[in-house]
Amino acid sequence: MAQKYATREEDYSKWYNELVGRADLAEHSGVKGCMVIKPYGFAIWEKMRDVLDAKFKETGHSNAYFPIFIPKSLFEAEETNAEGFAKECAVVTHYRLKADPDNKGKLIVDPDAKLEEELIVRPTSEAIIWNTYKNWIQSYRDLPILINQWANVVRWEMRTRLFLRTTEFLWQEGHTAHATKAEAIAETEQMLDVYSWFAENYLAMPVIRGFKTESERFAGADETYCIEAMMQDGKALQAGTSHFLGQNFAKAFDVKFADKEGKLDHVWATSWGVSTRLMGALIMTHSDDEGLVLPPKLAPIQVVIVPIYRSEEELQLITEKANEIRQKLNALGISVKFDNDDNRRPGWKFAEYEVKGVPVRLAIGPRDLAENKVELARRDTKEKSVVSLDGLDTYIQKLLDEIQQNLYDRALKFREENMRKVDTYEDFKQQLEEKSGFFLVHWDGTAETEARIKEETQATIRCIPLDAPDEEGKCMVTGKPSKKRVVIAKAY
Amino acid sequence: MAQKYATREEDYSKWYNELVGRADLAEHSGVKGCMVIKPYGFAIWEKMRDVLDAKFKETGHSNAYFPIFIPKSLFEAEETNAEGFAKECAVVTHYRLKADPDNKGKLIVDPDAKLEEELIVRPTSEAIIWNTYKNWIQSYRDLPILINQWANVVRWEMRTRLFLRTTEFLWQEGHTAHATKAEAIAETEQMLDVYSWFAENYLAMPVIRGFKTESERFAGADETYCIEAMMQDGKALQAGTSHFLGQNFAKAFDVKFADKEGKLDHVWATSWGVSTRLMGALIMTHSDDEGLVLPPKLAPIQVVIVPIYRSEEELQLITEKANEIRQKLNALGISVKFDNDDNRRPGWKFAEYEVKGVPVRLAIGPRDLAENKVELARRDTKEKSVVSLDGLDTYIQKLLDEIQQNLYDRALKFREENMRKVDTYEDFKQQLEEKSGFFLVHWDGTAETEARIKEETQATIRCIPLDAPDEEGKCMVTGKPSKKRVVIAKAY
Repeated sequence: MAQKYATREEDYSKWYNELVGRADLAEHSGVKGCMVIKPYGFAIWEKMRDVLDAKFKETGHSNAYFPIFIPKSLFEAEETNAEGFAKECAVVTHYRLKADPDNKGKLIVDPDAKLEEELIVRPTSEAIIWNTYKNWIQSYRDLPILINQWANVVRWEMRTRLFLRTTEFLWQEGHTAHATKAEAIAETEQMLDVYSWFAENYLAMPVIRGFKTESERFAGADETYCIEAMMQDGKALQAGTSHFLGQNFAKAFDVKFADKEGKLDHVWATSWGVSTRLMGALIMTHSDDEGLVLPPKLAPIQVVIVPIYRSEEELQLITEKANEIRQKLNALGISVKFDNDDNRRPGWKFAEYEVKGVPVRLAIGPRDLAENKVELARRDTKEKSVVSLDGLDTYIQKLLDEIQQNLYDRALKFREENMRKVDTYEDFKQQLEEKSGFFLVHWDGTAETEARIKEETQATIRCIPLDAPDEEGKCMVTGKPSKKRVVIAKAY
Repeated sequence: MAQKYATREEDYSKWYNELVGRADLAEHSGVKGCMVIKPYGFAIWEKMRDVLDAKFKETGHSNAYFPIFIPKSLFEAEETNAEGFAKECAVVTHYRLKADPDNKGKLIVDPDAKLEEELIVRPTSEAIIWNTYKNWIQSYRDLPILINQWANVVRWEMRTRLFLRTTEFLWQEGHTAHATKAEAIAETEQMLDVYSWFAENYLAMPVIRGFKTESERFAGADETYCIEAMMQDGKALQAGTSHFLGQNFAKAFDVKFADKEGKLDHVWATSWGVSTRLMGALIMTHSDDEGLVLPPKLAPIQVVIVPIYRSEEELQLITEKANEIRQKLNALGISVKFDNDDNRRPGWKFAEYEVKGVPVRLAIGPRDLAENKVELARRDTKEKSVVSLDGLDTYIQKLLDEIQQNLYDRALKFREENMRKVDTYEDFKQQLEEKSGFFLVHWDGTAETEARIKEETQATIRCIPLDAPDEEGKCMVTGKPSKKRVVIAKAY
């Protein structure tokens, strides 16, 4: 008997947790709040990383690596940033263990090996990086600095969920330094463009590009740009952020440059990042009750071939044909797995690749061979069809594009259906209770009103959309004037 | 005036330190013992990583990711391993900072946020991984597990040197699980082969493959295989290790599997790794007093083109030709930089790319254009020649192969010249004092003799070479019988 799993309808949260396990993506580790990313999950993350990394390089950035530890005195230099992360910092206080005199074979922390200054395990690297940039920058000729790093970071979380919120996670963090404010803002916006391009074209996930409100900004930023996506339960997920840091870190670390006239000024900064959280976004945007649904561009296996056979001879004939198909598809850059495992029945394999979100499944039996055709199943629509072996490679190539597009269109349609303009606070609260989603509302721009909405409804202002049209209106809570609608939603 | 730098002859250690800075590879950070890997250095590391990663996958391994923290109780489970690393462990004891009540704007560790169990920052991941594998392995069908991870690790070092010995470093660590001892040993040997293949074919660095003595083994291993390379000062550098871990970790974490007959047995293990230390090996194998010398296969820039011009018109004509050359070279997979920076003179650029180890430099002036030729300089031999523009791309393609081979041959010749058989302890000590290098000596196989040699000469047994011929002899120290020569040297 197959185990019964929660459906999205029954229990979205449980469905998600079970799916991460069923699809072999990740699991909780022996360390509270930290996850193990399993090979299949990591293969998806590697695909994301490779696409982003190439794009970062194309836009002029280089990778580098900065220490995982930040001495406390550096960490606290930029006070807003330090205050924002202080509550979630893992702190290294000692550098040695020793044998426990009371307990043979056990170890204790050596009290004689206490650090003079505690080290913070990076929750983000602005502090250590700006302390480094200080020595790299003297004149305008040293600018811009355009660096990215792929790294692990640690933010102590009390309530964790695989990929979405873990104590340790993997991410990339770009840190750039510029001579002018305008150039830094252009960089911040460029990287937001990169993130939305990636989300829409690879994750097949439509996003709303916007500014965060002041209270939702990155600690230490003058402006935080973000991309917000809608999950299938109507909740929002912040999928990437790009921060204009002004001169805050340059001032904290005293980083000045001489311009062409020799005049000294503080350097302008940006930082931007996406993390393994994108895995959570990917899962929750497309997957269904049967398992993961992967956009072809990020699927480690794009096509799986399952042989249907009774005898060794049949398997051999199918294998020949499968190898031929695989070679043709490989030549088009399409990854293929031929699963000839003799210990598993076809039905088991069908379910397995369905759970794992493989976009296209081919089943080949002896009769198919005789008739020069194959049974093809699409993961996204679950449609099955019988397709000729002639021209199968280009057929599949087009189909993968179609699936990629279909996933995007479907997600966009879902978002459109679940994004509503609301004008009164009563309406808002009522609709929010009935059905989650994004609400476009007028807000008076004050932190007080924002806090009140959050407290009373658990919904937060996700962003002020960049492309929101000017529209005279009144704050749904206070009735004060507003010039644009903002996006409010419950969020991950 | 150009700054005067130490030569290898004058001060090898100073030469190395200065070179790492001059070539813009890495620098010390604001955290004691931790380095910043700068973009140019990181680009070389990325090339190494990509080649190795592809090879790991080709040999059946997948990447995954395990937590950076190891709870103390898991860390101490395999006692030999724990004891081996206990003295160099960074320990996280708290998970929160708070405002310092006595010092506005400063933070202190929150004493209320003390962890119940301390977390060790991984110095190596066997413990956390085997605690995870425990849940993945029930039967022989779950084996082998062939996983690699690219990660940062921390080993608290008192005396550090960039790339060679740093508190935090980057590495890959493979961790595999097998049903039989023979299979685990075959895996250990396979990965040693991968490392020596990589060292010789990419780093252009000849290596000796061997076993470590018992006292030099990885803590927790039954056998440690290694590759040892000779640096230009005659000292040895351990460039990679592959460990047969027996059933030690399986026993410590109680990891058993049922074989086909249902009989339970502990799982067999291997682990293997190379680190950013390879950067140090690369630098010290080939570089000269003028700067870095890079093997073409690992050079981020393989060919640099420097225009020699007086007028804008000249530059324009040269640019056209340079773009043409670049396109042709790019088509052959060769990376090219055209340096048209108008703020720097050609002489400055020549020195810059020499320091950075770019294998081939082309200089093009208006007369070269008129005569359809170019001046070409090889970094390895510093030879200059004038080459026709016709067929330049294939000429350079062959030249890069030639340079790669030349670097290997040169390093091999150097090693051969500095590897000597010695039969008496007196001879050994005298020769070691006169000139460093590798010594092939007979040793009685005891830890006592090994320790004595180390104490009296600072030289260590680097390895027992895999391909050492059987040879009856007498230990150079004790005169006791020996059947093989071992390699002894001073080492990094």
